[in-house]
Amino acid sequence: MNDFNFYSPTEFVFGRGREKECGAYVKKYGGTRVLLHYGGSSAARSGLLGRVKASLDTCGVAYCELGGVQPNPHDSLVYKGIELARKEKVDFILAVGGGSVIDSAKAIAMGVPYEGDFWDFYSGKQPEKALPVATVLTIAAAGSEGSGDSVITKEDGMLKRGAGSDLIRPRFSVMNPELTQTLPAYQTACGATDIMAHVFERYFTNTKEVEITDRLCEAVLLTMIKETPRVIADPDNYEARANIMWAGTVAHTNIVGVGREQDWNSHGIEHELSALYDCAHGAGLAVIMPAWMEYVYKHNVRRFCQMATRVFGQQMDYEKPEETALKGITAFRYFLRSIGMPINFAELGAKEKDIPLLVEKFGLGDGRTGGFVHLSSEDIAAIYKIAAHADL
Amino acid sequence: MNDFNFYSPTEFVFGRGREKECGAYVKKYGGTRVLLHYGGSSAARSGLLGRVKASLDTCGVAYCELGGVQPNPHDSLVYKGIELARKEKVDFILAVGGGSVIDSAKAIAMGVPYEGDFWDFYSGKQPEKALPVATVLTIAAAGSEGSGDSVITKEDGMLKRGAGSDLIRPRFSVMNPELTQTLPAYQTACGATDIMAHVFERYFTNTKEVEITDRLCEAVLLTMIKETPRVIADPDNYEARANIMWAGTVAHTNIVGVGREQDWNSHGIEHELSALYDCAHGAGLAVIMPAWMEYVYKHNVRRFCQMATRVFGQQMDYEKPEETALKGITAFRYFLRSIGMPINFAELGAKEKDIPLLVEKFGLGDGRTGGFVHLSSEDIAAIYKIAAHADL
Repeated sequence: MNDFNFYSPTEFVFGRGREKECGAYVKKYGGTRVLLHYGGSSAARSGLLGRVKASLDTCGVAYCELGGVQPNPHDSLVYKGIELARKEKVDFILAVGGGSVIDSAKAIAMGVPYEGDFWDFYSGKQPEKALPVATVLTIAAAGSEGSGDSVITKEDGMLKRGAGSDLIRPRFSVMNPELTQTLPAYQTACGATDIMAHVFERYFTNTKEVEITDRLCEAVLLTMIKETPRVIADPDNYEARANIMWAGTVAHTNIVGVGREQDWNSHGIEHELSALYDCAHGAGLAVIMPAWMEYVYKHNVRRFCQMATRVFGQQMDYEKPEETALKGITAFRYFLRSIGMPINFAELGAKEKDIPLLVEKFGLGDGRTGGFVHLSSEDIAAIYKIAAHADL
Repeated sequence: MNDFNFYSPTEFVFGRGREKECGAYVKKYGGTRVLLHYGGSSAARSGLLGRVKASLDTCGVAYCELGGVQPNPHDSLVYKGIELARKEKVDFILAVGGGSVIDSAKAIAMGVPYEGDFWDFYSGKQPEKALPVATVLTIAAAGSEGSGDSVITKEDGMLKRGAGSDLIRPRFSVMNPELTQTLPAYQTACGATDIMAHVFERYFTNTKEVEITDRLCEAVLLTMIKETPRVIADPDNYEARANIMWAGTVAHTNIVGVGREQDWNSHGIEHELSALYDCAHGAGLAVIMPAWMEYVYKHNVRRFCQMATRVFGQQMDYEKPEETALKGITAFRYFLRSIGMPINFAELGAKEKDIPLLVEKFGLGDGRTGGFVHLSSEDIAAIYKIAAHADL
């Protein structure tokens, strides 16, 4: 096991109707003037925004608003948010929405007290200060409600890049599974795929003997495999929604990743798809993740056998371990298709002829990207190619 | 799933030699004058205390010392610690040791800023303030390094009682698995049993459909079943020690317990044993926990079948589920015996004739204690009786 620090100080406020406690929690964590950040009009239409505002009013917390966050959130709105927050002397950012809204809020939180361009933090610089951030989560997917990560797309060149710092870990996150019940099946499945991908990126490691982290990974994956089809069949199933929502958080506080190397290449390879085609991140992952597995499984066949047997319930073939490994990957693709996810370029709306462009945007050049298997530009092209043609 | 809050703000600093970073972390969390609290002379002999002091010195952090914490820590030393901390104007308590030292440190932390008797917090009162606490953990067992709980024994009447508050959650916990390598096999096994009990107390619930929490419980149990025998066979196995140490923390931050009712009766029933006989808490649990299971399993046979199949690898007998349930409990006892734990009164050094006294000290009278099954004094006597006679 490698040495590590684990730090997840967010207070998770989980359950029915708990957005009504927002105001009290903002006060508890020192907020007096809030920037309320959200996406489209659904937050207003559903009454959620009204309940959040009423809670802030009741607790005497002032606020201004900035809506309009789009999926794969853009830098232009972040600049607008920074300007507004400075003008209104905001001391707390409250994100009401899914991962995109939260990621945008985190970018604003870092940008407000910083004299330079906030994009610096998405180019490798670490922030020294940030306004406190909190969330009211409406989509189970990104895990941003419990992480110190944020991903923003720069409109100039459609560059999708990440930032990470403990300073942008939410102070609290309100998680009411009821809020996710109106989410259409497709978006629900995209979220579930993203959650599973967050685990897989931590599961495939070269560090030996981290059984506890393996088992925690498998716990989340087994939960998702049980609960996701229940939600697709019955969107109003509160219990299944609740299990998925909490699993999504557990998947991304890093408790399923500590003590070892991780591999985030599938996320990186996918980011180029959603940046170029503006497809859902989860749908892109459904296409890329199994393709990546198929490309790298020979690097550690036993590890893929562990996934196949422990996670996907396959019988171990001790005479032909490679077949067991491949059966696990196939079972993953069957699962993804069963919940309505695409598994190849055509189903996603991506084009094989764009592969050279995707590889170029990935930006490796002659270098390699680290992880379970160190990948070159040629490797990444090969993974896109598998993803283009995958089928069952 | 029930509504819940989950809050675990402790920074875990995990790995080889990391006690050398103590001073820096005390400073990071605002400490300037530390009470260094520890147990016997082994912390000094092993050089650990010297390394901790050197780290405090290097960082310019002042400290005073109070050693002498015994297993099942007593109130008398807590009073002494409170007096010393006040006299020395301490603003931070650093516990160097296992659960007993940490629990004692937490009691001192609550007592220093409180005008009344600290025992009030062990009689149901909630503290409003506490000095910050941090730990350098030397035994994987109690989970106190990541919990807001503390258990202290009042010498007058040998009453063992618990307190709980977010205020006494450690700010940071240094966890170096190397420090546990010198621990004798018996104490190591006691710790492992305690860790498993912390999970089981959360596993047996009447709340339905909390799959994610079930799976996380099973993840910790499966890890313990794999790693504990490795450590008993080879005490210097760093990897196994590391897995157990981190599993012990995961078992008790409450991440394996959220969203449902819990049942802490086995801990309560055991506490009377360790208070009366001064036996190790883990050894007492090895005797009590399976006896409790045997007494209550008919309340929910399917739940015990889940334990038997998912945790102890039993085949499900769909025609005779009760037999599967019992096989799981038997497998647990075999496991406990395999790691050198007692499974009945004689092996523990307890006496069947004391059962009426144990029941009286438990103090239920004509009432019942809640949980998976609500237990009366007669039920508790029956569980002690099963524990007295258990065998394989």
